[in-house]
Amino acid sequence: MKNHAWIIAKPSHGRYTPDCLRWEERDVPAVPEGKLLVKTHLLSIDPTTRNWLLLEPEKAYIPLAVGDVMLGAAVGRVVESKASGFESGDLVSGLWGWEEFSVATPELLEKHDEAGIPDEAYLSVFSHIGRAAVMGLYGVGDLQPDDEVVVSGAAGATGALAVQIAKAAGCRVIGIAGGPGKCAYVASLGADATIDYKNEDVPAALEKHCASGVDLFFDNIGGPILDAVLLRMAVGCRIVVCGAMSQYDVADPDELYGVQNLQMLLFRRARMEGFVVPQFADRQSEFDGMLRRLWDKNALEQRSHIIDGIEHAPDTVNLNLQGRNEGKLMVRVVNGMD
Amino acid sequence: MKNHAWIIAKPSHGRYTPDCLRWEERDVPAVPEGKLLVKTHLLSIDPTTRNWLLLEPEKAYIPLAVGDVMLGAAVGRVVESKASGFESGDLVSGLWGWEEFSVATPELLEKHDEAGIPDEAYLSVFSHIGRAAVMGLYGVGDLQPDDEVVVSGAAGATGALAVQIAKAAGCRVIGIAGGPGKCAYVASLGADATIDYKNEDVPAALEKHCASGVDLFFDNIGGPILDAVLLRMAVGCRIVVCGAMSQYDVADPDELYGVQNLQMLLFRRARMEGFVVPQFADRQSEFDGMLRRLWDKNALEQRSHIIDGIEHAPDTVNLNLQGRNEGKLMVRVVNGMD
Repeated sequence: MKNHAWIIAKPSHGRYTPDCLRWEERDVPAVPEGKLLVKTHLLSIDPTTRNWLLLEPEKAYIPLAVGDVMLGAAVGRVVESKASGFESGDLVSGLWGWEEFSVATPELLEKHDEAGIPDEAYLSVFSHIGRAAVMGLYGVGDLQPDDEVVVSGAAGATGALAVQIAKAAGCRVIGIAGGPGKCAYVASLGADATIDYKNEDVPAALEKHCASGVDLFFDNIGGPILDAVLLRMAVGCRIVVCGAMSQYDVADPDELYGVQNLQMLLFRRARMEGFVVPQFADRQSEFDGMLRRLWDKNALEQRSHIIDGIEHAPDTVNLNLQGRNEGKLMVRVVNGMD
Repeated sequence: MKNHAWIIAKPSHGRYTPDCLRWEERDVPAVPEGKLLVKTHLLSIDPTTRNWLLLEPEKAYIPLAVGDVMLGAAVGRVVESKASGFESGDLVSGLWGWEEFSVATPELLEKHDEAGIPDEAYLSVFSHIGRAAVMGLYGVGDLQPDDEVVVSGAAGATGALAVQIAKAAGCRVIGIAGGPGKCAYVASLGADATIDYKNEDVPAALEKHCASGVDLFFDNIGGPILDAVLLRMAVGCRIVVCGAMSQYDVADPDELYGVQNLQMLLFRRARMEGFVVPQFADRQSEFDGMLRRLWDKNALEQRSHIIDGIEHAPDTVNLNLQGRNEGKLMVRVVNGMD
């Protein structure tokens, strides 16, 4: 029995290239006491994947080093368990290595036994993705039913869920995405208006669609879109910093986009706040309950964009960084041994 | 009896020039029912004075228009009262016109009758200045005794009080100011370290003085200093946006400084928030009590920089914008009629 793994070959600075990861054939690992062996079905490819590969612990809450198996969110089945509470055959999601068979830590796993939920949903609605959307809107952004909400990266995995959660709360929602196809998708999710940042003048479009001012901006993108929204804030606006995709893959720090309209935070008594999912651990069941109730009402659609073959995982990161994915990006392990 | 007033001649866009105000001789106004006539002793010159002259209501909470008497914080005595609760001779501070005699609105006034407090203090510690410092630190910044606090504009009126309030709370405080004289003043207020942004490399100095990361940044300046502090934030940092002096007098919006390190809000789960004093109206007595207790312990020093002659008021705005004042800037009305 052989295993295949993606090993971190070097840190990825500047523009991401897949050669920071190295493909290696290894033995299927033995299972230490208190751990379990999982067979990987799906690996999640996220914007933060690229940031983890900086290997700068201060920019990610996951410590990784050269020589480690790359880590990511994943779905799979337990093959062998030496941990209490889990047994062979259990469907699990959590954090483990980019490999066909991986030794997983029970504290980083969740066990799933509900019918009617496809595996992919454990990397989207019922994962850090869905949690980022609901925690960002409610936990950070204090979402109110009469808010005018703008979501950037609205066709992305987290953005698409944020659009739907804000609509379900009763808000007016404007989605910003790149290209007519993505905007049509965002409109199909219920957005009241969309702005195609690749083909429209974003400041003018915001002026048109947000005449009364933006109350909550759920930002996945940063850069010039953030700068434009700063000029359209209502008094008391909350900017939820979920991501800054436009700036993750900038090669030279001097080339990072300079945001010029921060003064508006003062003039609008506005708040801008970054967050990560783990900081809401004590409210996770509350937020998971909200996601589940919306799911049960068919109010949360999530497209999946699945690439077959774990051998493609490093290339898939670029698909994500370049916004060429359509839906939540994941890699399916098709040649793992059953 | 003649009165002299500064009238708004035109909005001040781009770089401030005093010709946006016009000197006019007028009759002393009659007092309408419910109002009172005050004789101005001191006028406050503040960084926001310049912003009010933009005449853009969305950038100030004070609506002003061409032809109005310029408005500002002031101290004076009631000459004639047609408002209940006030009588001739009362010492008052509040908002009224830049003129020797002005009709004031009782809702915008506070009456003072305590011994031992000099008039100037009603434009500094016991005014919007002191309130901005204490409300910013506690109301917005959630100041904690073990915080490492950085204050920019630390030799300015609000900054100097913020340094002292944070020191009194037990915090380690680093003050940023321009020039050795201002830095010596900030050190004399108790700051544990100072950074002279005109003669030191600010990022390197922050790295040296804030090795464990900044927990609270009380920012009066914005621009490159803000960009440098963003890189030194501890997890959970709060940035209190009290002002953005470096950007107020930029002539061309394209020349506004572009802040490149906003991504750090995400990586540090940090919060950046603007505020104005009136939004804490319901906690004003709590915050005023904190200022009074510190004053009574001689823990709040405030220098005054007083320019004699109301005729100099428009020029004095430039003194402030260029950071050439030493202490809280105000104009004394010396030729008003008694």
